[in-house]
Amino acid sequence: MSVVVQNIERADQSVIDRLAACGVATVHEAQGRKGLLASYIRPIFPGARLAASAVTISAPPGDNWMLHVAIEQLKAGDILLLAPTSPCEDGYFGDLLATSAQARGCKGLIIDAGVRDVADLTEMKFPVWSKAIFAQGTVKETLGSVNVPVVCAGAYVRPGDVIVADDDGVCVVLREEAEVVAKKAEARVAAEDGKRKRLAAGELGLDIYDMRGRLAEKGLKYI
Amino acid sequence: MSVVVQNIERADQSVIDRLAACGVATVHEAQGRKGLLASYIRPIFPGARLAASAVTISAPPGDNWMLHVAIEQLKAGDILLLAPTSPCEDGYFGDLLATSAQARGCKGLIIDAGVRDVADLTEMKFPVWSKAIFAQGTVKETLGSVNVPVVCAGAYVRPGDVIVADDDGVCVVLREEAEVVAKKAEARVAAEDGKRKRLAAGELGLDIYDMRGRLAEKGLKYI
Amino acid sequence: MSVVVQNIERADQSVIDRLAACGVATVHEAQGRKGLLASYIRPIFPGARLAASAVTISAPPGDNWMLHVAIEQLKAGDILLLAPTSPCEDGYFGDLLATSAQARGCKGLIIDAGVRDVADLTEMKFPVWSKAIFAQGTVKETLGSVNVPVVCAGAYVRPGDVIVADDDGVCVVLREEAEVVAKKAEARVAAEDGKRKRLAAGELGLDIYDMRGRLAEKGLKYI
Amino acid sequence: MSVVVQNIERADQSVIDRLAACGVATVHEAQGRKGLLASYIRPIFPGARLAASAVTISAPPGDNWMLHVAIEQLKAGDILLLAPTSPCEDGYFGDLLATSAQARGCKGLIIDAGVRDVADLTEMKFPVWSKAIFAQGTVKETLGSVNVPVVCAGAYVRPGDVIVADDDGVCVVLREEAEVVAKKAEARVAAEDGKRKRLAAGELGLDIYDMRGRLAEKGLKYI
Amino acid sequence: MSVVVQNIERADQSVIDRLAACGVATVHEAQGRKGLLASYIRPIFPGARLAASAVTISAPPGDNWMLHVAIEQLKAGDILLLAPTSPCEDGYFGDLLATSAQARGCKGLIIDAGVRDVADLTEMKFPVWSKAIFAQGTVKETLGSVNVPVVCAGAYVRPGDVIVADDDGVCVVLREEAEVVAKKAEARVAAEDGKRKRLAAGELGLDIYDMRGRLAEKGLKYI
Amino acid sequence: MSVVVQNIERADQSVIDRLAACGVATVHEAQGRKGLLASYIRPIFPGARLAASAVTISAPPGDNWMLHVAIEQLKAGDILLLAPTSPCEDGYFGDLLATSAQARGCKGLIIDAGVRDVADLTEMKFPVWSKAIFAQGTVKETLGSVNVPVVCAGAYVRPGDVIVADDDGVCVVLREEAEVVAKKAEARVAAEDGKRKRLAAGELGLDIYDMRGRLAEKGLKYI
Repeated sequence: MSVVVQNIERADQSVIDRLAACGVATVHEAQGRKGLLASYIRPIFPGARLAASAVTISAPPGDNWMLHVAIEQLKAGDILLLAPTSPCEDGYFGDLLATSAQARGCKGLIIDAGVRDVADLTEMKFPVWSKAIFAQGTVKETLGSVNVPVVCAGAYVRPGDVIVADDDGVCVVLREEAEVVAKKAEARVAAEDGKRKRLAAGELGLDIYDMRGRLAEKGLKYI
Repeated sequence: MSVVVQNIERADQSVIDRLAACGVATVHEAQGRKGLLASYIRPIFPGARLAASAVTISAPPGDNWMLHVAIEQLKAGDILLLAPTSPCEDGYFGDLLATSAQARGCKGLIIDAGVRDVADLTEMKFPVWSKAIFAQGTVKETLGSVNVPVVCAGAYVRPGDVIVADDDGVCVVLREEAEVVAKKAEARVAAEDGKRKRLAAGELGLDIYDMRGRLAEKGLKYI
Repeated sequence: MSVVVQNIERADQSVIDRLAACGVATVHEAQGRKGLLASYIRPIFPGARLAASAVTISAPPGDNWMLHVAIEQLKAGDILLLAPTSPCEDGYFGDLLATSAQARGCKGLIIDAGVRDVADLTEMKFPVWSKAIFAQGTVKETLGSVNVPVVCAGAYVRPGDVIVADDDGVCVVLREEAEVVAKKAEARVAAEDGKRKRLAAGELGLDIYDMRGRLAEKGLKYI
Repeated sequence: MSVVVQNIERADQSVIDRLAACGVATVHEAQGRKGLLASYIRPIFPGARLAASAVTISAPPGDNWMLHVAIEQLKAGDILLLAPTSPCEDGYFGDLLATSAQARGCKGLIIDAGVRDVADLTEMKFPVWSKAIFAQGTVKETLGSVNVPVVCAGAYVRPGDVIVADDDGVCVVLREEAEVVAKKAEARVAAEDGKRKRLAAGELGLDIYDMRGRLAEKGLKYI
Repeated sequence: MSVVVQNIERADQSVIDRLAACGVATVHEAQGRKGLLASYIRPIFPGARLAASAVTISAPPGDNWMLHVAIEQLKAGDILLLAPTSPCEDGYFGDLLATSAQARGCKGLIIDAGVRDVADLTEMKFPVWSKAIFAQGTVKETLGSVNVPVVCAGAYVRPGDVIVADDDGVCVVLREEAEVVAKKAEARVAAEDGKRKRLAAGELGLDIYDMRGRLAEKGLKYI
Repeated sequence: MSVVVQNIERADQSVIDRLAACGVATVHEAQGRKGLLASYIRPIFPGARLAASAVTISAPPGDNWMLHVAIEQLKAGDILLLAPTSPCEDGYFGDLLATSAQARGCKGLIIDAGVRDVADLTEMKFPVWSKAIFAQGTVKETLGSVNVPVVCAGAYVRPGDVIVADDDGVCVVLREEAEVVAKKAEARVAAEDGKRKRLAAGELGLDIYDMRGRLAEKGLKYI
């Protein structure tokens, strides 16, 4: 039952970079409001923004053995994503694992559990989005799997899917939809630029989006 | 049932400014320890401190239509305050709405739900106190109301009441009590200044507040 | 039932300083993965790191009277640690108490409840690890105890035990084990330095820790 | 600041009884989907269903003194409703207070905090809707108020407002709207009876409510 | 984006019945400890136990329109399973919808949100496993989808997968694995019967499972 | 570090039985309002009420091996009490372990984690107070300890301390204080009987406890 899938497909790096440029909120809207991880997944420091291919990990509660296995599977530009098999907030990951992952070109970690050594990780500029910051140690006794589909913080993630993460949280984009989503996201960014200028000039959304008629029709009363 | 109240009364700007200067903890104490919003309402960035008149919004879960309606009702110096009609952490508000609100002189947002684009909002210095940071999009399908009384994060807020907010959280002051509260709060600030000096010099609260007798009477034993 | 224990034993300052240098995660591992406070105890600002002897407080919900009593018991280099007798997130502690504590040489506060005036505390560089930031005021009506054993955020703490705290959270070390734990923690730090260099050079934990055989034995399959 | 309001207005008993017969979900719908207390307020035993006039209590955390004061204000058919001034789950109420309240004709208790002696209360058939079951004792040291408006579990409640409670939770109806709401609620009950029969016979809501056209218009695709 | 998939495959009824007989804990173990929904999904009354094919619903927060659409897709013996697109505890489902679903042969509901009219549902013996009991009403304004894969309370569920539910919670079995899992689960039940007798007779698990040697090897000390 | 302490002292059975007769709320009051476990520890079925000597277990998250070890240490009349070393809600315990424990005379289980097979446990009348009901399986890979002091749901418990549990929750009594506490608890029960009669007859607590003077003194106003 415990497997390591060694060859996974990834989206094109250029597409991944375009998704990073658009950010989580826009990408999430562009793909039909799906793929968000739960809001309890928060960055350990502000300002990080990235997109990367997921190397996924399914791990038992309180056991970080599979992280060592997963690091060998990383290609430069990947991100680690760990989902425990039952709810856990232990500190699976700290500065030593981050050093190892960073040496392999890993761009960060998404973990539906805890992380520790956050002062060091901040200094290393190794971004982590986690459920908790917790120093609680883990063991290396029970197997899990690497590069299998997982549910992480409420989102279904397959190995090689694109993870977009910034201060707003984390979103997953299906690898095969990445290019279409990037295009739609960029279109949203462009459209928003025009609206932003009009709004900044004091025009109202009520007028820009022509909402007054529909509001009246639904029965809104001004008193 | 869905209404927009267009003319609301506000407290004097000078009184609002005096409340801002005193801060949340002091204002809360000065008005008899009432009016605090729940502690889960947190600022999206540290250091903001303000007081403003509330333009209130009652909105359905996952529907941010009324924010567009509310922005038209803003006067310079107001703050938006949104309470969903059932618990929700969707991202009702982002950088476009903030641009629009800021253009109308809005000083910030209090929301018992989620907010997104927080990196942009931080850069814009548009302060938000929210329940969650969550990129989850919303729709514009169902009406709510603007400038009606709401319960927001456990506090009863009427349109035009004064909102005081800083790193400690958010407090609401009844519009008609604002002046009295400001006076009491300023008195507390003045009194605290004297005590701070004595405490900094090493005097004990036990002595400054003359507590030893009452502690002994209640039965405290030193061993 | 309400007592203040005036003379408590403390660990050697030099040992305390060595524990501070090692940090929470390492100290926790070195003492057999015990002593961590729950992960909901978080610092009010990042970057603080310290170790200190605990002056413990057992206080009723919403009543901060015993903090005044406890401050008199502080020796320079101590830390206050407050556990409410039932769950509470009221703001027991603010800038006046911090001024008083700091004047007595207190290094910080651990509190399984709320704190307020956090902007001031941050400016004063007075570190607090708390369950909540909440301006809610407290009263001074009911006694508690000072320097008695308490359970604080899930950890059993006796007066004089050593508290280690940093961005990862808070850990307690038994006073009588402090020296042994410091030695073990320093050994871990030394050992980690070597591993960090090898990992940074691209060596894998799988090889450094010789895990491949045991993984195969447990049944891990590469596909 | 601490007051006991002795004479409060109540709705007509016949109206109150009609609301009880309709139940929480129907009453809530009938008054425009407002007035619900948060879902964490749960009955201590299943099967109770009632409506009653609220005698409200604002009490400090961990202090149940005001319950004794409030019991004197009860008229037969009233219900006690307690909101703590900051979040608390202590056991404010047990079998002795229930005996006293029941002797005065009190029909139950709504409490945004804890309750204890639940085996006894169940045997006494004294219904309680609470946030927690917790044996934690309280003190009698600090005043609160009786028969003042409070926010209880997210709902604004004034003394004399009608409380409707059953296995679905708790809803508050403004005293002055009670009759109109009862009428609307009864109309809903009548209308639902007809629909229930058609649905039980296998007719679809899609047809009874004529939804197919609007679904198609919005873009629903059957595949 | 909003679709209703009309023809879904289901597992054999006989296999579904065998899974029901084994129960959640055993089925979950038999399939390698996967497929459990989060523990916050609880039955509204004790004693129900079933297995059924899932008709899945992805619905917006606070909008139960798709339930009406889904009921038309039910075959006798199916179960409804609803996942909101963002966290919500509104009461999507009550006695009228239950009457309609039951008339179509529906065996129950799994919902990662709220339910209401629970006294009626209990009387109707219509079992529901939900996140909350909450009377909060919903609207019918925004589309979702029926019979698409969803993540429900942390588990990935596809239409036609087998849902097993009892007092322990809810587990999903992949349709194509249902037969193999049923066989393994039945083997576990048989094996457990033998062990149960030996344990009831006072034999120890330490001996039945031959654990003493391995415990000693790992270093367990009896003192 | 992993030990099994084989000989522990227990309180007299007659004292334990007297504590059971008094119940959790009374015992907790009698010993000065200490020793309660957190309110999230709830019985899996209503109506159980017992007192017993604790056989304590410190176990890793998701690993129930030590339960097998602990069962051998049980004497008739004991209760198992398990605290995980980090927060966990996995189902450590089900009907097989209950059969084994019951065969050794065990009276129940207190667990700051999850339990499963609750329908069976209910039928067996084996009472459990737990944090969660969750079918999630556990492994047997990592050692813990038996009969060492633990912190369980916020309470410090030593092996042989007396556990009192009923529908109100769970309370621990120090073994060496058990007799004194039993005496005080019985005195409370006796005193309450008299008060219950007076309250049932309509006398007010305000008069029975002579509160009116002190309320007036503190400033309570009747209006």
